[in-house]
Amino acid sequence: MVNLSIIGATGYVGLELVRILCVHPNIRLQKLVSQSYVGKKFSDIYPSLRSRCDIECTELNINELAKSSEIVITALPPEASKDIIPALLQLGVKVIDHSALFRYKDPKVFEKVYKSEHNLPALQAKSVYGIPELYREQIKDATLIADPGCYPTCSVLGLAPAINSELIDLSSIIINAVSGVSGAGRKEELAYGFCEIESNYKAYGIANHRHTSEIEQELSLLAGTDINVSFTPHLAPFKRGMLATIHTNLTDAAIASGVSTEKVLEIYKEYYKDKQFVRIMPLGTTPEVKYVAGSNFIDIGVIVDLRVKRLIIVSAIDNLLKGSAGQAVQALNIMMGIDEGTGISVPGMQL
Amino acid sequence: MVNLSIIGATGYVGLELVRILCVHPNIRLQKLVSQSYVGKKFSDIYPSLRSRCDIECTELNINELAKSSEIVITALPPEASKDIIPALLQLGVKVIDHSALFRYKDPKVFEKVYKSEHNLPALQAKSVYGIPELYREQIKDATLIADPGCYPTCSVLGLAPAINSELIDLSSIIINAVSGVSGAGRKEELAYGFCEIESNYKAYGIANHRHTSEIEQELSLLAGTDINVSFTPHLAPFKRGMLATIHTNLTDAAIASGVSTEKVLEIYKEYYKDKQFVRIMPLGTTPEVKYVAGSNFIDIGVIVDLRVKRLIIVSAIDNLLKGSAGQAVQALNIMMGIDEGTGISVPGMQL
Amino acid sequence: MVNLSIIGATGYVGLELVRILCVHPNIRLQKLVSQSYVGKKFSDIYPSLRSRCDIECTELNINELAKSSEIVITALPPEASKDIIPALLQLGVKVIDHSALFRYKDPKVFEKVYKSEHNLPALQAKSVYGIPELYREQIKDATLIADPGCYPTCSVLGLAPAINSELIDLSSIIINAVSGVSGAGRKEELAYGFCEIESNYKAYGIANHRHTSEIEQELSLLAGTDINVSFTPHLAPFKRGMLATIHTNLTDAAIASGVSTEKVLEIYKEYYKDKQFVRIMPLGTTPEVKYVAGSNFIDIGVIVDLRVKRLIIVSAIDNLLKGSAGQAVQALNIMMGIDEGTGISVPGMQL
Amino acid sequence: MVNLSIIGATGYVGLELVRILCVHPNIRLQKLVSQSYVGKKFSDIYPSLRSRCDIECTELNINELAKSSEIVITALPPEASKDIIPALLQLGVKVIDHSALFRYKDPKVFEKVYKSEHNLPALQAKSVYGIPELYREQIKDATLIADPGCYPTCSVLGLAPAINSELIDLSSIIINAVSGVSGAGRKEELAYGFCEIESNYKAYGIANHRHTSEIEQELSLLAGTDINVSFTPHLAPFKRGMLATIHTNLTDAAIASGVSTEKVLEIYKEYYKDKQFVRIMPLGTTPEVKYVAGSNFIDIGVIVDLRVKRLIIVSAIDNLLKGSAGQAVQALNIMMGIDEGTGISVPGMQL
Repeated sequence: MVNLSIIGATGYVGLELVRILCVHPNIRLQKLVSQSYVGKKFSDIYPSLRSRCDIECTELNINELAKSSEIVITALPPEASKDIIPALLQLGVKVIDHSALFRYKDPKVFEKVYKSEHNLPALQAKSVYGIPELYREQIKDATLIADPGCYPTCSVLGLAPAINSELIDLSSIIINAVSGVSGAGRKEELAYGFCEIESNYKAYGIANHRHTSEIEQELSLLAGTDINVSFTPHLAPFKRGMLATIHTNLTDAAIASGVSTEKVLEIYKEYYKDKQFVRIMPLGTTPEVKYVAGSNFIDIGVIVDLRVKRLIIVSAIDNLLKGSAGQAVQALNIMMGIDEGTGISVPGMQL
Repeated sequence: MVNLSIIGATGYVGLELVRILCVHPNIRLQKLVSQSYVGKKFSDIYPSLRSRCDIECTELNINELAKSSEIVITALPPEASKDIIPALLQLGVKVIDHSALFRYKDPKVFEKVYKSEHNLPALQAKSVYGIPELYREQIKDATLIADPGCYPTCSVLGLAPAINSELIDLSSIIINAVSGVSGAGRKEELAYGFCEIESNYKAYGIANHRHTSEIEQELSLLAGTDINVSFTPHLAPFKRGMLATIHTNLTDAAIASGVSTEKVLEIYKEYYKDKQFVRIMPLGTTPEVKYVAGSNFIDIGVIVDLRVKRLIIVSAIDNLLKGSAGQAVQALNIMMGIDEGTGISVPGMQL
Repeated sequence: MVNLSIIGATGYVGLELVRILCVHPNIRLQKLVSQSYVGKKFSDIYPSLRSRCDIECTELNINELAKSSEIVITALPPEASKDIIPALLQLGVKVIDHSALFRYKDPKVFEKVYKSEHNLPALQAKSVYGIPELYREQIKDATLIADPGCYPTCSVLGLAPAINSELIDLSSIIINAVSGVSGAGRKEELAYGFCEIESNYKAYGIANHRHTSEIEQELSLLAGTDINVSFTPHLAPFKRGMLATIHTNLTDAAIASGVSTEKVLEIYKEYYKDKQFVRIMPLGTTPEVKYVAGSNFIDIGVIVDLRVKRLIIVSAIDNLLKGSAGQAVQALNIMMGIDEGTGISVPGMQL
Repeated sequence: MVNLSIIGATGYVGLELVRILCVHPNIRLQKLVSQSYVGKKFSDIYPSLRSRCDIECTELNINELAKSSEIVITALPPEASKDIIPALLQLGVKVIDHSALFRYKDPKVFEKVYKSEHNLPALQAKSVYGIPELYREQIKDATLIADPGCYPTCSVLGLAPAINSELIDLSSIIINAVSGVSGAGRKEELAYGFCEIESNYKAYGIANHRHTSEIEQELSLLAGTDINVSFTPHLAPFKRGMLATIHTNLTDAAIASGVSTEKVLEIYKEYYKDKQFVRIMPLGTTPEVKYVAGSNFIDIGVIVDLRVKRLIIVSAIDNLLKGSAGQAVQALNIMMGIDEGTGISVPGMQL
């Protein structure tokens, strides 16, 4: 049994972590840290957890955490991560962090995008970007994981095989994505009120969403050259799920070589052949949110449209699972020598 | 490992059964019978199940079923159950049936309510009404389980302790209930179209819903006397979940004895003290659909309103789980000597 | 043209008033008072109003209001109404108030229910409870209207003919009602966040909702005797609309006289025969939220269930229209000598 | 008063037409033709219309229609339009058709896209494509209007000013659009069932949606050269509304001339300066479905992203209004000499 604690346990990502880990056969939940709910039972805040996680929330005490836990998952804003994570690592505790703090190879990018100092370059150097399908080996030995953003996970895994096989013009990538509302977290903001969102649909953060830089970093690493993308997120009236519709121009070489939907599907299947959480959709079908919601899968479908010389990629995840807490547990399993799918292998709810 | 098959696997109840059982550690899914999808992979119909249940649907073959399976779950209309179930039982296969066919002690009630002949009184006599909280001992030894209706499960468990403790006037029971849309099953009917239901709310089946008779049977058995109730179901714009708001008049004796919300809560906790899927809500709170959706729990809350001399009971379940497939798996576990909570112990999704 | 201003214009009730009145042929909108948005265009807050209402919000100035407007509609909490309304009336301005302040014949009931002093008994005496179907004559000459609560409107109009015809046991009234989320107003509260409400359903305010007292006042006035009711509101995942399912015991006299659904329908049609916004549902049908949402109608259906000796009444309104802003405009029309249906005669959206 | 009839009145477009026209001050509804509901009151099918449109549906009788009506609106599949419309025109009746039959300048395109013969080239030549913002003068004198598709309306009006001002590379247009479910019409298909759509999101018709050809025709006419686009529609869980997110590459010339969001906004405002139903969003904001749902407006926002040299355009409409029935009434008003905004000038519901 691995002893594990969570800091920032009462946000939506924290809730999702607790929901998974309270029935994970190899994990023993120790401390649930939540400054706003100290002394309150987790199941009083989230009654769905009654009789599954009745642990009382505690305040932050780094030494207590280090004593009780081999690993800590943090679901905090970057500012808070900055203080807490170095102290935990120093005491020999492994950390999986949900903030953007340790996601960038170059701390200067973090500083620019998040308008916040990053004075931890040494830790950054040790941090692993936690997409197991791309960085499994590094995750195994990591002491610090930066759990990736939801949009980057969905976009990067959708594009990786096409970039790897040099099918597409790297300057032509246009990512239209849509997220469920839980992606915004547990916020008391009018903008996320039911009456503001139900029956509504909108784009937001056009041309300036912070995840753009994270997507570009990972695609550039895959391509071995700098890539800029257009990334346009949208908000739709559902709670969990994410879908990216990605348009790319096929290269002349790809067209000359007789590229087709069938061939691209083969490339994708080959690329992800040992990855248990990636499902390539059969010819003629594309992902839907309801196929992945409630699961840790990413579904990917592709269509070659020779009329306009484009490859269209559609990828879908549950933003709270493969896009956040589920991916964190996947990394946790790998780090701790537990079978990768443990606790996150259930199929989606569909209904 | 228990070998199990499902007949009527591609309806919504069938989907829910497959979703649970494909990751149940003690069950090996054998045949998925679906007349309309013979030869098609289950996961092509429900892509959420890809890589979890890729079994091909087969047509009905009683002998094959009996050879391959110790137990069969049927999710069929009563007419089909009538033909198939006797044949299965004859071949020594245990059956859990989701139709109303075997739910009534008196087959004449079935005949009147469902306007259909019931020529299997001997099987009826052996059938057990599958609410484990009320009939666990009989379920252990049963060969035929009638899985209860969702509204009856929610209503009867909500009322049982109050009736048992003689708190309420038995002629005063008024049950207002609301169901998610999945309760109607997988139907190609305009009435269940998205545009007809989203943002809508309505009562239906007022004064003549078929579950009334099932509720009355079970309450009468509990009370030892005939009970009539008013039962008014409603349809609300969500997929899964059910909530019953039950108004009852307190007896003069109960009032004289100083009945209070606190005391009634104690009575409820005592009544359900060993029942792992029943959660009594703390004083001052009542159930919500989001606390139980995705789980097999039934949550029950009570409020004594002395101003009007009434006891108000609120109970909530997931109509597809505790109200259907989950309760069937609970009974299955008990019948097959598996720990009662196996495969159905996860908490709800909340989000 | 009637010059009209609104105080508290940027809440949801204010929005609904502006939406109606900006295209009302007999009204000229003057001031939109909103402390939090002074200097901001109404259509910048609510872009649906762009090119329909681009008026700038102003701060409260009683004298300016009195100079520019014959009538003012207030959509404020009772505390604010207490200060503002007397001043407006003093300056000869008519007022329609949306708070509960002037809804009670007996100010002591207000004080008890709202835990707030009511030091304006003289104004209370002049106030008219603004349900035109019950108080049209008084509304004509009124200078101060208390716009009724949404639940009271829906419940009282549903019960009035049954009480008037002495069909029901007055101690047996049980009102189960459900409201769309807009009824809670424009609030930055987590409880009204999309992720908290979508796919959820719950009861709230059981045995202590403030509208109970308002319902009881009006039913008691209709009956000529004191009536207590059970009133249990629920919250469902839609934005606008309200439905009440009301259970009542038929009197022995009613049963002896051969009461039937048909006869009760006749009684209801007769009672509301000249009321253009009341629609009695045909035999065998009951109201649905989608039939009234977006309109000022109240739909009412009835079912006599002789098996349990009860009359079940279902009534439905749009909580923002007949339950609030629409009813205020209906009263406004009557007060100002405008045809009653002007500006509020469109049918519902259904889709 | 203009006498008007509708054929295909009981589909969702028909419902929307009736909802608008039953309170249109210059229109007298005559016949509502619906083969499946002959003899049934329109308000029995759609109870929201009770007391607003209680007309009985009739079967198709061309002569009766011609006698009673100056103009007929058809909401039928192309096959039915093919038979009925020539007969109506022959009898001197004006027609607004909602099918795709008369939308293509070149009938061969219709034949290819809809896989159906088009043997009415003479009528095609007289037909006017009914977007008033582009073809107002022709609409004035038309006897036959082809009401445009919803996606084409939303996309073409979004792109017209950019094409007209030669801002964008015509080969680079990528339209991602999302529609509410009502766009699929009133269908008894499982795919449009509530449980299949609620909380789901998906792309569909990728690389082969029929509206692509209609969009390309209109953009090509605007540009004076052939244009191919990528058009990818999506289905989201709301009833009404449509939003297109359009990515285009800026031309070198545009970039050289110092293009900016501000300048493009000026171009758009100028292009649509007399068009009462087009609203250009202020700098820094983009359209949302809730701003237009329930109204005949199209809202358009633009963002210049010089980092990637692209112009992003977001446009939104109500698919049933500006995308269908509302635009038909707008054309009707123009054809019949009625003020263009009559009956369709209300702002959206927002809530």
